[in-house]
Amino acid sequence: MKKFMNTAETMVAESVDGFVRAHADFVVFGTDRQCVRRRHLTPGKVAVISGGGAGHEPMHIGFVGQGMLDAACVGHVFTSPTPGQIIGAIEEADNGAGCLLIVKNYDGDIMNFEMAMEMAAGRHAVEMVIVSDDIETARIGEGRGRRGVAGTLIVEKIVGAAAEQGRPLAELKLLGDGLNGRIRSMGVALTGVTVPHTQRSTFTLGATEIEMGVGIHGEPGHSRQPFSTADDIVRYLCETISRDIDVQPGTKALLFINGLGGTPPAELYLAFNAARRFMEERSIPVERSLVGTYVTSLDMQGLSATLALLTKEEMTLWDAPVATGALRW
Amino acid sequence: MKKFMNTAETMVAESVDGFVRAHADFVVFGTDRQCVRRRHLTPGKVAVISGGGAGHEPMHIGFVGQGMLDAACVGHVFTSPTPGQIIGAIEEADNGAGCLLIVKNYDGDIMNFEMAMEMAAGRHAVEMVIVSDDIETARIGEGRGRRGVAGTLIVEKIVGAAAEQGRPLAELKLLGDGLNGRIRSMGVALTGVTVPHTQRSTFTLGATEIEMGVGIHGEPGHSRQPFSTADDIVRYLCETISRDIDVQPGTKALLFINGLGGTPPAELYLAFNAARRFMEERSIPVERSLVGTYVTSLDMQGLSATLALLTKEEMTLWDAPVATGALRW
Repeated sequence: MKKFMNTAETMVAESVDGFVRAHADFVVFGTDRQCVRRRHLTPGKVAVISGGGAGHEPMHIGFVGQGMLDAACVGHVFTSPTPGQIIGAIEEADNGAGCLLIVKNYDGDIMNFEMAMEMAAGRHAVEMVIVSDDIETARIGEGRGRRGVAGTLIVEKIVGAAAEQGRPLAELKLLGDGLNGRIRSMGVALTGVTVPHTQRSTFTLGATEIEMGVGIHGEPGHSRQPFSTADDIVRYLCETISRDIDVQPGTKALLFINGLGGTPPAELYLAFNAARRFMEERSIPVERSLVGTYVTSLDMQGLSATLALLTKEEMTLWDAPVATGALRW
Repeated sequence: MKKFMNTAETMVAESVDGFVRAHADFVVFGTDRQCVRRRHLTPGKVAVISGGGAGHEPMHIGFVGQGMLDAACVGHVFTSPTPGQIIGAIEEADNGAGCLLIVKNYDGDIMNFEMAMEMAAGRHAVEMVIVSDDIETARIGEGRGRRGVAGTLIVEKIVGAAAEQGRPLAELKLLGDGLNGRIRSMGVALTGVTVPHTQRSTFTLGATEIEMGVGIHGEPGHSRQPFSTADDIVRYLCETISRDIDVQPGTKALLFINGLGGTPPAELYLAFNAARRFMEERSIPVERSLVGTYVTSLDMQGLSATLALLTKEEMTLWDAPVATGALRW
């Protein structure tokens, strides 16, 4: 396994260092490097905080900045940040209006974020939104049901924009929960993911095999399928996610093709082309789109498709300005 | 070779289709799909046009938009666009103030862009800036000397910003030529690049080998080296590029770590961290930075380091707003 790293022990710290230095105009480390936060926090604004294991970069640190997150905590590879890190972020980012935690639905993350909430009780008003957009990992029976994957970006962008408008904590919590019910994702892998500490792939695929329904931690999917054309693969993803979501009157679709780490931009745009055509044939009008490598699984070659049905208000919040390391408009 | 594609014959067209649809708010196809251009051209402004072979996405179509390019032509994989495409772009984008062509230094590209200039003679004022930032490919003896690689982005950004201010063609030509002399790049590959038509890799590396000094078309580099730490690899790149450029008084450094297609963001940030440390140790103050996958070689796992020494004016142009598919601030 060849990767640009020095040691498995230092790779996360060195990568986050690089990120913070590359974007030093608007992010800084929190005290004791417990989080990465905005350089300038806005008084009176609800702090939107997220975090999770490393290995998914640019998520979440790449979403810290104007119009999105106030702070993000980074754990070890595929491991939740500690309650100590999270309470550190809460203490640093809370400007008096409380904190909204956006958490991907994994047992480890939920446990640690809940513990931090308990530690903050009485001193900080804290609410939590759990993102669970991955329709395939539900079937693996991980207890908490569907996990949070690329759709997390959409929740963080829209809730972040609403927080920037000065909306109160309770309203942001409602917005996030409502949104989560209308986002569906599914991923496909052409290769497994190489975990740095073990130097091993979590699963191995043959030259003509793909893994359908993968998670972002190298979890195997629900089926191994023969490699096929981009049209076939994307159709399978899009059929599955669009079947699982009620296309409600008054909502508009956002279609997001996300690279899982090792997939070049040209292939992502090609897959987007196929996905958009699929949605149009099903009379699902795609009003907004996003194509790029945002929520990764280390070096995995693969992609995920996310369909979000947004209200008019949510669409306006999606369009609102954002200035982060990874997302900017 | 597993890629997200349908056929090798249609992959470029489908990918460009996906790009244009994903960014339909500000780009459109030119007549007969000869180029991708801004939806709204600015009267009286010099048109900045680029282009080249496909396989380097998001370059150049990802740089079309406010503050950067007016139009870009896409050839087949690793093949120059035709003179017909280029003259099409000139005719469409020229708003009366003339056109500046930004061309990477390859025989095929230069021949076709020069042919288009001849075809335009008498009807359009056209100048050309040739970018040749790749210090390693000079040694391969390709006739025209150093090739154009990731540094092209910097020329297109800065000249594009100057064009947006309404500066005349002759001035933009001088700006671009001057800039090119102060940009150096070098690339390293962990894997070869798989060419879709042949389904073959242009060179094959063992599990503990890297290729130092690679071009962006799968050209082999100047030496095969043993795989090593990110610090070692990045130090080699940075030593080579910084030795080759005069650090002049009054200029400030822009450091750009570019992914070659299959390298995940976390590794790029880690490499940036090492590169920035190197430059600081050499008293080269890095005033601006860019980290991401912008100038690719299909699915190659690898990266390039680019050092640009900018004048104060060029730095202001670098900072000026840009709104394209790939670059936005």
